[in-house]
Amino acid sequence: MSLPGSPRSEYTLRRRVHFYETDTAGIVHFSNFFRYMEEAEHALWRDAGLTIAKLRKGIGFPRVATSFEYHRPLRVEDEFDVRIRVVGKTEKTMRYECVLTRDEEKIATGSLTIVCVSTGEGQPMKAIPFPVDVASRFAVAAAD
Amino acid sequence: MSLPGSPRSEYTLRRRVHFYETDTAGIVHFSNFFRYMEEAEHALWRDAGLTIAKLRKGIGFPRVATSFEYHRPLRVEDEFDVRIRVVGKTEKTMRYECVLTRDEEKIATGSLTIVCVSTGEGQPMKAIPFPVDVASRFAVAAAD
Amino acid sequence: MSLPGSPRSEYTLRRRVHFYETDTAGIVHFSNFFRYMEEAEHALWRDAGLTIAKLRKGIGFPRVATSFEYHRPLRVEDEFDVRIRVVGKTEKTMRYECVLTRDEEKIATGSLTIVCVSTGEGQPMKAIPFPVDVASRFAVAAAD
Amino acid sequence: MSLPGSPRSEYTLRRRVHFYETDTAGIVHFSNFFRYMEEAEHALWRDAGLTIAKLRKGIGFPRVATSFEYHRPLRVEDEFDVRIRVVGKTEKTMRYECVLTRDEEKIATGSLTIVCVSTGEGQPMKAIPFPVDVASRFAVAAAD
Repeated sequence: MSLPGSPRSEYTLRRRVHFYETDTAGIVHFSNFFRYMEEAEHALWRDAGLTIAKLRKGIGFPRVATSFEYHRPLRVEDEFDVRIRVVGKTEKTMRYECVLTRDEEKIATGSLTIVCVSTGEGQPMKAIPFPVDVASRFAVAAAD
Repeated sequence: MSLPGSPRSEYTLRRRVHFYETDTAGIVHFSNFFRYMEEAEHALWRDAGLTIAKLRKGIGFPRVATSFEYHRPLRVEDEFDVRIRVVGKTEKTMRYECVLTRDEEKIATGSLTIVCVSTGEGQPMKAIPFPVDVASRFAVAAAD
Repeated sequence: MSLPGSPRSEYTLRRRVHFYETDTAGIVHFSNFFRYMEEAEHALWRDAGLTIAKLRKGIGFPRVATSFEYHRPLRVEDEFDVRIRVVGKTEKTMRYECVLTRDEEKIATGSLTIVCVSTGEGQPMKAIPFPVDVASRFAVAAAD
Repeated sequence: MSLPGSPRSEYTLRRRVHFYETDTAGIVHFSNFFRYMEEAEHALWRDAGLTIAKLRKGIGFPRVATSFEYHRPLRVEDEFDVRIRVVGKTEKTMRYECVLTRDEEKIATGSLTIVCVSTGEGQPMKAIPFPVDVASRFAVAAAD
């Protein structure tokens, strides 16, 4: 459980499969798992009092690496949980791991590394340290 | 046939259905037809020597109304044509009609109305006349 | 308010804009409004005790016509409501209207007509009457 | 260059960024790279005389693991190449690597492992050997 002001390490999002997320094989298209993981990430940030709309102000958090392993398929209208955890932090990057489960079944496991960059019209993105008021909102999760 | 410098009235895009565009019913999800129509619109603009990346410079072309009627389903890997035509123009708006066909079969018919707006950070969108160098690139198509 | 066993006429879904639903113009891509409308439709069906997973059993509900008018843009992380209402019913078709609002602002208004069909491997879709246990679950909404 | 009847090891797809594939950060959403990779895979299969519509006949090729590393962003209307190569084959699995480039710049590098399964209504997926007429169409690419 997280206290209101304490740094966040994880978040679990409850989600249902939408019809348009499935494909002709009758299962959720594998690309959508990355969207589920990002939804959970942004819910974690909101829970930490932040919003990725922050990026409008000359700062952004592009993804530098991501992966998923798929264990079981999800089907239309399935309910599932997306649990995301902060597993690594450096001055300029943050790394998450993510597990999708349906009831007790493990569906898929993913990872995501983001970097903090300065953004500007016509400027190349440049890695910069996370602002203190962002970095201080997250802490690496204890081992599971 | 269009001469290099003459205004454009229509464009036909050849396309193939991607796996991720189908759904669990085994057909292309109805929302994707709007994406096909926009792809054809942007191909028409490129054919007219323009690019919608123009919108980065404080001008945009949001959609104000759109519709589709569906006659037959599209399935994975189907090849089809998306023919878009300019059917109406005012100072600030442009209206397209669109027909999707597979071989000789009519698949779907759509419409799309866009408006020219000025855009700016934190400003509300405001309808403005199309710039002359945009307006002059398009002409209403002759009746089919 | 709906009684547990009474036919359903409308449903309102609360939703938040996901990052991947926006485009480079900084607003929700217009095609995604059709996905929001379908999410609300399926929530209405679930509220009526039904699921579109029903279509696995040789029956489906393809879309025959749909439209949207856009009044104001939605932006990343905006919260909004999607209210869908049954406005027409025939033996083989059902028609919805849909309004998206953010706080008191009207964002967009849509329509959707579906048809009941029999589906089978390699068979063309054929319009059939809605099964009684589906048709009896919905009633046309009173005028707003 | 591939001879008509020889097994395939790689394919390069030319692609352009669609407007709806970008996000509010002004770049292609990271999830779409997985869709680009799959488009290239299916183009490779077509080049080998096969189609993933094959899966309608009780056989499928679900994804078991995938990843991407992102080096540079793609923006709206950018043209880029997606080169996919077969880098591993077992009786029941195939592994690809994928490189996206824009002009001479490396944009992203991905990987994808698929498994051959038997599929049936209401049956769990079960890994099976690739049919001979599929397995014989692909060969592991020579080191780059």
